[in-house]
Amino acid sequence: MNPGDRVRVERADQTYEGVLLPSSTSQNLVVKLQGGYNVGIDREDADVDVLESDVYDIEEGDTEESSEVEFDPDLPTVSLISTGGTIASTVDYRTGAVTAQFDAEDVLRAVPDLAGRANYRGRVVANILSENMTPDVWQDLAQAVYEEIEAGADGVVVMHGTDTMQFTASALSFMLDTPVPVVFTGSQRSADRPSSDNVMNAVCSVEAAKSDAAEVMVCMHASESDDVCALHRGTRVRKNHTSRRDAFETVGRKPLGEVEYGGGETDVSFRRAHDERGEKELDISPELESEVELLKFTPGMDESALDVAEGKAGLVLEGTGLGHVHSDWADRIGELVDDGTTVVMTSQCIDGRVCARVYDTGRDLLDAGVVEGEDMLPGTAKVKLMWALANSADPADEMGEPLAGEITERSVPWE
Amino acid sequence: MNPGDRVRVERADQTYEGVLLPSSTSQNLVVKLQGGYNVGIDREDADVDVLESDVYDIEEGDTEESSEVEFDPDLPTVSLISTGGTIASTVDYRTGAVTAQFDAEDVLRAVPDLAGRANYRGRVVANILSENMTPDVWQDLAQAVYEEIEAGADGVVVMHGTDTMQFTASALSFMLDTPVPVVFTGSQRSADRPSSDNVMNAVCSVEAAKSDAAEVMVCMHASESDDVCALHRGTRVRKNHTSRRDAFETVGRKPLGEVEYGGGETDVSFRRAHDERGEKELDISPELESEVELLKFTPGMDESALDVAEGKAGLVLEGTGLGHVHSDWADRIGELVDDGTTVVMTSQCIDGRVCARVYDTGRDLLDAGVVEGEDMLPGTAKVKLMWALANSADPADEMGEPLAGEITERSVPWE
Repeated sequence: MNPGDRVRVERADQTYEGVLLPSSTSQNLVVKLQGGYNVGIDREDADVDVLESDVYDIEEGDTEESSEVEFDPDLPTVSLISTGGTIASTVDYRTGAVTAQFDAEDVLRAVPDLAGRANYRGRVVANILSENMTPDVWQDLAQAVYEEIEAGADGVVVMHGTDTMQFTASALSFMLDTPVPVVFTGSQRSADRPSSDNVMNAVCSVEAAKSDAAEVMVCMHASESDDVCALHRGTRVRKNHTSRRDAFETVGRKPLGEVEYGGGETDVSFRRAHDERGEKELDISPELESEVELLKFTPGMDESALDVAEGKAGLVLEGTGLGHVHSDWADRIGELVDDGTTVVMTSQCIDGRVCARVYDTGRDLLDAGVVEGEDMLPGTAKVKLMWALANSADPADEMGEPLAGEITERSVPWE
Repeated sequence: MNPGDRVRVERADQTYEGVLLPSSTSQNLVVKLQGGYNVGIDREDADVDVLESDVYDIEEGDTEESSEVEFDPDLPTVSLISTGGTIASTVDYRTGAVTAQFDAEDVLRAVPDLAGRANYRGRVVANILSENMTPDVWQDLAQAVYEEIEAGADGVVVMHGTDTMQFTASALSFMLDTPVPVVFTGSQRSADRPSSDNVMNAVCSVEAAKSDAAEVMVCMHASESDDVCALHRGTRVRKNHTSRRDAFETVGRKPLGEVEYGGGETDVSFRRAHDERGEKELDISPELESEVELLKFTPGMDESALDVAEGKAGLVLEGTGLGHVHSDWADRIGELVDDGTTVVMTSQCIDGRVCARVYDTGRDLLDAGVVEGEDMLPGTAKVKLMWALANSADPADEMGEPLAGEITERSVPWE
């Protein structure tokens, strides 16, 4: 069998049929499936039938040994890390690099527009749909970003499914002190759809990764047009639409900055104060407490829903309005607190700050030991609580202090 | 002791100090506290000390027996129903009508700007903070609205706490067929704060109750200014900010209509098609299935969270993106469906439509028997599922059909 053959591969319970591609590793077979996606299959125990020879005319130059993109000492080095999701499939699709590292050539074959903007390094941390993202993978990713920066990357782009990007970006915001930009990006449209947004998002993310803002950010379309990407702080961003290209928004404010695109020119600008390149020393605190629940309160909900937090280290409540649940719940919440659960109140309004001192219910919750989550997004509060319980001497106190832009200072005027 | 005396009242563990007001019931003492709020205190077992006589000069005309606002046959009749919350305290404050009916004079004493706009009827269904609202009270309220319309009200205004107003408005949207407007309103600011929004909201709501749109609507400030109230469809509205006066928004679209206010003139206008006055016969279907849960999925959540739906009639999932949960959950969800639980998928993105056919995870969920919640708000979907399970022969099918504007037709262009 040779690259270009149409093959059927059987391994474990799975059967794959498609065209064999050149592989970047000796361990994997890479097969381009009929749908256009590539899959990497461990050679071990794989049964391969060649169905048809030379279906594709694959040249020698297509294998990884043959060519190298030249390193340009005048350009910064950007590391691209893939975790899976729609945008990563752009790269995986062409390279088959599902479980392997990929190189500059793979990147440029996938998104030719990235040429001339940076020297590229690439690595794959996971290949999962982001609804399957777990705190374990957050830790692997933080470690990979740390290693890439330590190895000299001037900026890092993380390709991530959009469903839970805000959670992962929050996790890395708390885990990492970074002297360079760490930019999450993704795609709201499958790469096989004509209106796919992945090329523009990838280009803008690389530009953001070269910028002077040393923060964990999310870079996605700012509008339905292909003209500007917004740069959102990782802890304040939210996917606010199921399908629009401009689904990601900074809650309650304008984004941190933007990347102009179009006309071939790109320009990164920031509208707010941010951590600057080189300001912080690279550091990592990847530990997480996994026993943390998030519970959204709705009318008619039984108090027994709180049982899910029994014996757990932390509970984030997504209350109503200024941060309320049924006032009958206060006693049970007090018991959880007394038993050692850190309980944090946030609001399902999403925008605005919780304040427990205005109404009786809130005051009862404060008396019960509930910690006010200020204006933290509920999802961000859950991630922060997981982090604070594993890293802080006083997690309850830490929840009220801004660590990574997740709490807006009261003195910042409304924009 | 007489109305106008400064008194100290002790009852149970509580002590109240303030000025005794005329009470509309023989059962209650009504005391105006120093902060400006009135409290109704059961006379039974209450100890009263008169601290000072005739602090306030309360005239005979202030008692309910003495005067009647004249009925104007040229004006429509609007029924005001109080359920509690900040706005209701405006009325309760003056009348002490915590547990009683109130009359036109009470209304006009509370909000003089309402004079000349309608003939008023009033009744109290509950006096609770809206985080304590329950499906039982939704049913009482629907019954009260039904009775008021049956008794000849040309429109109904429901005063409601803002925390869970959208849930109650949704419940009445499904329970009632109404030939007249049913308008929910509330206040985002305590009545004792100078910027309280309750007068404008009350006036605009009365005007909306006189309009030709026979729908269940929410009428609240459209901006931070006191110039326009927005009219939102009850099933599409969401409290999107913890404290702003314009916290309520129609998700993903412009509101159904608006009420101009300011300069003394009010004007109600609608921008979209709506059910018209008299189009539908008055009808009520107040039955609800109480065994329905709403569960918000977040990364790191254990599958055992689904246990809360074990043996329950319904479960609404608030998934990520187009409607996903961790793909490992599909089997357990399939078991719930097989055991008779109707499982509906919505999205925590809030805006946009779920679509399970794009990615593997969604297709697995469809195979497991999950019903797509279209673009329903998760909270609305929960209320609808409670209603459908009690009223529909095929609840799963009903969940995909628009009943009260809760699902936006795909053919409606984006506004």
